[in-house]
Amino acid sequence: MILRDPIHGLVAFERPSEELVVRLLDTREVQRLRRVRSLGVTSLAFPGAEHSRFAHAVGAAHVMSLFLQRMCSLSTELSPSERPSLEDEQLGLAAALLHDIGHGPLSHLFEEVFVGAPKHERWTSALLLDPDSDVCRVLHETDPSLPASVNQLVHGHHSKPWLAHAVSGTFDVDRCDYLLRDSYMTGVRYGLFDLPWLLRSLRIARSAGGDATLAVDGTKGLSAVEGFFLARLFMYQQVYFHKASRAAEVMIRSLFARAVELQQMHPGDSPLPPVLAALANRTTVSPRDYASLDDSVLWTCIDRWQSESNDPILRDLAGRIQRRSLFKSAALDDEDAQRAPELLEALQKIVADAGFDPKYYAAYDIASTGLFDEASVPSEAMYVCYSRRAPRVLSRASLLLGKLRGERLTTRRLMFPFEVRDQVATLLGRSPQLSLALPF
Amino acid sequence: MILRDPIHGLVAFERPSEELVVRLLDTREVQRLRRVRSLGVTSLAFPGAEHSRFAHAVGAAHVMSLFLQRMCSLSTELSPSERPSLEDEQLGLAAALLHDIGHGPLSHLFEEVFVGAPKHERWTSALLLDPDSDVCRVLHETDPSLPASVNQLVHGHHSKPWLAHAVSGTFDVDRCDYLLRDSYMTGVRYGLFDLPWLLRSLRIARSAGGDATLAVDGTKGLSAVEGFFLARLFMYQQVYFHKASRAAEVMIRSLFARAVELQQMHPGDSPLPPVLAALANRTTVSPRDYASLDDSVLWTCIDRWQSESNDPILRDLAGRIQRRSLFKSAALDDEDAQRAPELLEALQKIVADAGFDPKYYAAYDIASTGLFDEASVPSEAMYVCYSRRAPRVLSRASLLLGKLRGERLTTRRLMFPFEVRDQVATLLGRSPQLSLALPF
Amino acid sequence: MILRDPIHGLVAFERPSEELVVRLLDTREVQRLRRVRSLGVTSLAFPGAEHSRFAHAVGAAHVMSLFLQRMCSLSTELSPSERPSLEDEQLGLAAALLHDIGHGPLSHLFEEVFVGAPKHERWTSALLLDPDSDVCRVLHETDPSLPASVNQLVHGHHSKPWLAHAVSGTFDVDRCDYLLRDSYMTGVRYGLFDLPWLLRSLRIARSAGGDATLAVDGTKGLSAVEGFFLARLFMYQQVYFHKASRAAEVMIRSLFARAVELQQMHPGDSPLPPVLAALANRTTVSPRDYASLDDSVLWTCIDRWQSESNDPILRDLAGRIQRRSLFKSAALDDEDAQRAPELLEALQKIVADAGFDPKYYAAYDIASTGLFDEASVPSEAMYVCYSRRAPRVLSRASLLLGKLRGERLTTRRLMFPFEVRDQVATLLGRSPQLSLALPF
Amino acid sequence: MILRDPIHGLVAFERPSEELVVRLLDTREVQRLRRVRSLGVTSLAFPGAEHSRFAHAVGAAHVMSLFLQRMCSLSTELSPSERPSLEDEQLGLAAALLHDIGHGPLSHLFEEVFVGAPKHERWTSALLLDPDSDVCRVLHETDPSLPASVNQLVHGHHSKPWLAHAVSGTFDVDRCDYLLRDSYMTGVRYGLFDLPWLLRSLRIARSAGGDATLAVDGTKGLSAVEGFFLARLFMYQQVYFHKASRAAEVMIRSLFARAVELQQMHPGDSPLPPVLAALANRTTVSPRDYASLDDSVLWTCIDRWQSESNDPILRDLAGRIQRRSLFKSAALDDEDAQRAPELLEALQKIVADAGFDPKYYAAYDIASTGLFDEASVPSEAMYVCYSRRAPRVLSRASLLLGKLRGERLTTRRLMFPFEVRDQVATLLGRSPQLSLALPF
Repeated sequence: MILRDPIHGLVAFERPSEELVVRLLDTREVQRLRRVRSLGVTSLAFPGAEHSRFAHAVGAAHVMSLFLQRMCSLSTELSPSERPSLEDEQLGLAAALLHDIGHGPLSHLFEEVFVGAPKHERWTSALLLDPDSDVCRVLHETDPSLPASVNQLVHGHHSKPWLAHAVSGTFDVDRCDYLLRDSYMTGVRYGLFDLPWLLRSLRIARSAGGDATLAVDGTKGLSAVEGFFLARLFMYQQVYFHKASRAAEVMIRSLFARAVELQQMHPGDSPLPPVLAALANRTTVSPRDYASLDDSVLWTCIDRWQSESNDPILRDLAGRIQRRSLFKSAALDDEDAQRAPELLEALQKIVADAGFDPKYYAAYDIASTGLFDEASVPSEAMYVCYSRRAPRVLSRASLLLGKLRGERLTTRRLMFPFEVRDQVATLLGRSPQLSLALPF
Repeated sequence: MILRDPIHGLVAFERPSEELVVRLLDTREVQRLRRVRSLGVTSLAFPGAEHSRFAHAVGAAHVMSLFLQRMCSLSTELSPSERPSLEDEQLGLAAALLHDIGHGPLSHLFEEVFVGAPKHERWTSALLLDPDSDVCRVLHETDPSLPASVNQLVHGHHSKPWLAHAVSGTFDVDRCDYLLRDSYMTGVRYGLFDLPWLLRSLRIARSAGGDATLAVDGTKGLSAVEGFFLARLFMYQQVYFHKASRAAEVMIRSLFARAVELQQMHPGDSPLPPVLAALANRTTVSPRDYASLDDSVLWTCIDRWQSESNDPILRDLAGRIQRRSLFKSAALDDEDAQRAPELLEALQKIVADAGFDPKYYAAYDIASTGLFDEASVPSEAMYVCYSRRAPRVLSRASLLLGKLRGERLTTRRLMFPFEVRDQVATLLGRSPQLSLALPF
Repeated sequence: MILRDPIHGLVAFERPSEELVVRLLDTREVQRLRRVRSLGVTSLAFPGAEHSRFAHAVGAAHVMSLFLQRMCSLSTELSPSERPSLEDEQLGLAAALLHDIGHGPLSHLFEEVFVGAPKHERWTSALLLDPDSDVCRVLHETDPSLPASVNQLVHGHHSKPWLAHAVSGTFDVDRCDYLLRDSYMTGVRYGLFDLPWLLRSLRIARSAGGDATLAVDGTKGLSAVEGFFLARLFMYQQVYFHKASRAAEVMIRSLFARAVELQQMHPGDSPLPPVLAALANRTTVSPRDYASLDDSVLWTCIDRWQSESNDPILRDLAGRIQRRSLFKSAALDDEDAQRAPELLEALQKIVADAGFDPKYYAAYDIASTGLFDEASVPSEAMYVCYSRRAPRVLSRASLLLGKLRGERLTTRRLMFPFEVRDQVATLLGRSPQLSLALPF
Repeated sequence: MILRDPIHGLVAFERPSEELVVRLLDTREVQRLRRVRSLGVTSLAFPGAEHSRFAHAVGAAHVMSLFLQRMCSLSTELSPSERPSLEDEQLGLAAALLHDIGHGPLSHLFEEVFVGAPKHERWTSALLLDPDSDVCRVLHETDPSLPASVNQLVHGHHSKPWLAHAVSGTFDVDRCDYLLRDSYMTGVRYGLFDLPWLLRSLRIARSAGGDATLAVDGTKGLSAVEGFFLARLFMYQQVYFHKASRAAEVMIRSLFARAVELQQMHPGDSPLPPVLAALANRTTVSPRDYASLDDSVLWTCIDRWQSESNDPILRDLAGRIQRRSLFKSAALDDEDAQRAPELLEALQKIVADAGFDPKYYAAYDIASTGLFDEASVPSEAMYVCYSRRAPRVLSRASLLLGKLRGERLTTRRLMFPFEVRDQVATLLGRSPQLSLALPF
């Protein structure tokens, strides 16, 4: 099978180990990912960001395929037992393709909405191991041990460390694909890095104990590695932590929190459809039922609530989301952050005075990510190797990564309806005559 | 407002005439387009093609903005009454943004599914003129005559021909955006053409009667114009007429035709949700109700039918679509096409013998488009102008377009379930031992 | 060796057969190509087009490497004697890298300047076979028969037709690289086509006699092939036949023709440096001396002549070229072309009346290329193959190529100094008040 | 005039102030830049990097044009006396186009070769003010004060600080163009940043004293600014400080230092052509004579010396450069750097023992650049402004730039002929059996 991908160009699954990918692609569980957008509500801020987890899953499998080809070309540096076998390849490809099948509607957001329900990793396991799922059946037909071993690998466990790291590690195939894809689709060009060059500069280094570990060529590959981490930083800064995305997420959480509350107040008259109602109730939901969920289930709720719900909060919030009348946000700087609890309390009062229920209309939103967390265990770290010098860890080899090591990117924002923005400006001692910049 | 678009880069709506665009963007009718994919089921063949009509509408408005800026810079060549006024700009931008608001779920496909229901152009008019719609309200607030004049312009009527042609013509802003966008998102690079250069090479020519007409500079612009038509040809060849897209469309049509039939057989027990049921019944549907439809309404049906329907055809077809087990196709060449009726009949028999209802499982699919249809009325044609020579129509100025003029791209295919592909190969006298190429 | 190429990205020469490429790269003859621009004086019209034949030679070798890898992956469809051997690979790579080493300064233009001197193909042979050349020595060290067999292959002769065609044929590696490179460097985006996709869609077809021939997959590859021919058409239209490039070429020819004439008039006082003087005299020049020539030899002449020459024509033409005060051109349409001899005569009179020597200041420039010349011998044609249908030649498989087959793109222009442009406009019956468009 | 640039796409000089650009383009001094490569010998490491200072000068003028358009659209925030006048525009565009006309062959390298000769900035002034130069004449025709005021501005002096900074400052048009152009041409994609977005996010801030200063919008522009500085860092790391480029530069310096020495030893028999000989002698050279120099003057020397020189050093070094047999390099880490003088001494001994003159065959090469040097004077700093918060300097607004502030990128390398690389490895205590990685 060959197909066209806008990010990677020609994507081919034609090697013997890749037959399994072709068979897995048409399973219900993988096809469901077409109906789950990768970036949840981010398309409210970046109109291009409408791509699904399906396209990403195919991309991740493709990156795995490129990675495995690179490993094969390094095989002279590996002992026979370290080299990638056909089984390793199948396993790696299946894990790359299937790592996301447990994601719910709107991706990460779903988990935050149904807080007590199992996380997507748990659902991924459940679907992989459920004898009724298509993916389990296809894996089992290839090799009865595959469902269990794919499940292990998806969670980062494998006896060959290079394979475990490729599925779940600093540069795993998941990240490699999503940074490029999210960058391409949003049009935020800062998320680009040179994947072919990065793969090509992978080398094998030996730890003191003689174990083979992945390393990167210091002459050729260091900029590619730095580019990867900067791409990550830029994508967080520009896209994942964008104030309009975060505002939409806060609103979706408020909205569904309200629906869950209504269900608890009136158990017989839940505004939620059955599977969501069960998740809200923390009733057991079968993998099959879970796999019936997709983005449209949530959007159908929102559409119905904004026109039909008797609950004014549900109706109003749903309407704001549909019309993209998003919460405004005020960023708190370090000084403000120190008195965040007081500020939130003051915001809640402002919101209440304006006639909104602060439980749903006022939020203190914190987003934070590590920029470069070097493994503290030497055997886990990524090494940079040189032709005639001893290898070094990334933070010692790279000026930039040395600077970023252990640093975090954090944004803190108060969020509230546009109706109270002047009061919030006054609260924060900011000039109310200036309009807050309105992100798209 | 400025925003990032992956196709056009920086998109700004900041000129006085563009304030209206910003206000229209957040109407329910425009926001609904986020939930309608531009290319319907094409993403089954091109995983990247998941973009919505919303992103396209914004892009079309942006192209209109660029076009109007070019017209302003040509204004010394126009008489005062021919120049773009502020009102023209508002009108043109609104028409570009709103031209698609009447599109149903899965875009063009929807009309083919509910054959008797009004076409999307009718719905666009209905929504523009419906006093209850958000867009009508916003337009009316700006100028009470705008709803009617936008409606006129969307259908290609305006006293300034250059404006009418920009909304609905050979190079209209709709085509300019969708060719670039569909190309970018599918990864089919052949759909690119040089939009900035094309706009920049626009000139004003004068007809014999002295009317100002748009023309293109022969020295600088001819390749850009040729590029545009070739982009169109390639996109039809590679994407719009792709066999997997067409197969999915045939299946969706079969599926909903079956649902409509079931409803007619058991009026009290329609498998369709209310608004679709009304459309199927040819009952009047209000613009507001129509505007509640989006892709998820159809996908929700498909998901429900494949797991719950009692009708085996509905259940089976829905399941095939969900698993992407698409109909296979056999292309007919000119010779085969001559005996298409017999072939279809034979196919129907094969399909029936295999236990499928040929009404839903056998189709003869014809797709056809003109490659370059030069206006036969001189005043409607596009002219190419030169510094010291008389202008010429495109087909005379361009070797390539002279060749393509009046030509059509046509594909004819039999479509059928994969279970009968060997029998179909035998029917067509083709070697059954070769597997039909399986498109993604 | 891996290196970065702006067109192809990562270029690696690391397979066993590619060691020879690395050794050939640092020969004097290949390094000389750094000082010969691919597009001669085209950078006077397209400022970006300053790339050398060296970068192109590396690119051509890279395309050959990709092509050979594709052939290897098709090897199951080839008999053992048809498959690419290590020797074939070395040969093909060397031929791709070295095919241009005979090019003189300003590439093709040089041959037109020194009309009686050997053509670049002859110099390529001379350098390949000259025991004193670095390339001959390196080839000989690898295999004493290589200089002769590379020379054969460069001229299109090899017992395996697929290899001969890859070096010199419709889609040879030379064209594949230069179309992409010239497009990238000029910024004329129409010259792009999808090389990876084109290579990937190559197949093996069998002629009636059982011979293996290259074919292209009709489902996947036809658009890529069409894109290739259109890229060619666009590049000719926009770049290679651009009026400013052609004008600069006419002027360079006039200038050196004058220098040659002066040398013939005053043999003891040639304005030409020794090697050029010998070529002008048709005296034998050794390959080594020829290989001392590069673009700077010509530019040094031009610079010296414009400031120092006593000959007013040499001085004036050199100065015009240096200041980019290029000849103007008037395109002749088909009607004008019929009376081209009279027009040229009239132009010569106009030029003479204005005080210029028409021998050097008036020209009738014709540029022409075939758009798609399908081989008339079936065994030479390119085939398109299908899964269950008989293969077809390109012109039958492709609507576009069917239209372009046998067609030519031809431009005819009168060229003259800007001082007489009004008189020329009057001559051609064109409005003199309009200024001729001035290309950059 | 409109033209195609591969980096910026459509480049138009059509506004009234831009007529001067068109007239300056065809002066001898600007046309000479076509024969001076921007990156000197860097194309020995990056085959694509063959672009000239001419293409860069056009690009810088284009960026200035975009910048001026942005300033015009900000003019409501400026007092009448602060706004860009037509004269400012002409001045800015001329300065952008002409800022490099004083560059000698191989750009920066030339100054290092003829160490005592005036720097390129001095030559730029000399050419601007020389009544015999074309540029001076064209400027003078437009306004007799222009030569002097362009000269002032080129050196960063103007009463409107925003204009002075645009020509010579942190984000000047020179850097904006060359980072993008060098990145595009080398294929090192890390040098990209989002120029349109950066320009669009420029704002006017007011200092305490009320002066208008350029600032960048904190919400929209910060990533673009960070991208700019990272692009700079990556380009230094990957390209400008690349070991093969630096090695070639060291060799060119050695070569010409030898030629200068030979001339001093035998004044009557200089290997250098007259103008270079005069520069070497520190004799006065007229601007006109200086402007006769271009890259080919140096390459012609190299070509002649390698085949004809009697001096073995001149002959050998010239031959190595021509064959790209570059010096090898050994990078010194911080520890090594402490004992650099001893190491250099030891290297000189090794080189001498191998029969080479260490004066020309051994070097200690240090390359260093500041990554982000924030102005210490508040009025000079770049500010980031927010809608309701006080502006901040870049290092406080940006986590990344805060980290990079005051940091330097420094590489230190020993350079030597490949013949002694094993001895050097031993000297540095590095494993001699590993070959040093050989950059292309």
